[in-house]
Amino acid sequence: MQVSELIWSETEKEIAHQAFNRAYERELMTLIEYVQVQSHAIKKIDDVWNLHDFLSARRHQIDGKYDFRYSVLLFVFADLLKEGWLHQEDLEGLEKDKLAKITALSRI
Amino acid sequence: MQVSELIWSETEKEIAHQAFNRAYERELMTLIEYVQVQSHAIKKIDDVWNLHDFLSARRHQIDGKYDFRYSVLLFVFADLLKEGWLHQEDLEGLEKDKLAKITALSRI
Repeated sequence: MQVSELIWSETEKEIAHQAFNRAYERELMTLIEYVQVQSHAIKKIDDVWNLHDFLSARRHQIDGKYDFRYSVLLFVFADLLKEGWLHQEDLEGLEKDKLAKITALSRI
Repeated sequence: MQVSELIWSETEKEIAHQAFNRAYERELMTLIEYVQVQSHAIKKIDDVWNLHDFLSARRHQIDGKYDFRYSVLLFVFADLLKEGWLHQEDLEGLEKDKLAKITALSRI
């Protein structure tokens, strides 16, 4: 069965939403902390434009990455797992086949 | 004579460069101070994206505004004067006709 054709039970949908939101919160909290630290070090205009460039890149990246469509969700979870924003325990309760696919994809 | 056809003496060119740089420095220092204050108040992700939006707009605006071409310089100086980044005394030494044009344009 194709990843895009997987069936998600109501319980799994709930788990998926929570896992997705947790990863998003973790990544954004880390971003906020980074911006706070960087902005305290602003002394000259290049520091301001560097911060702007950084935020442009991160915003674009985050907007593209957090895509909650079931057809792509295993890929999204695999990326988040690889990057450390999602933890294995966040996914507990998903069926074994999905977990195995996510883990396998996260190793690519 | 058209504004774009004005002749600038070497002394005037030097004064114009200094005035232009002074205005630029003033505006950027104010921007840096603003970003420092705003960034200290960052608590949530909306604050980060609001800062990003603000920087995008200001960068675009500043890039467009600081145009050191003699053909448009009186207009640039008029805008900077109106916005307070340039002071009348920065322009002392320019010929009276140019000063009058800048002052008149700054009132539009």
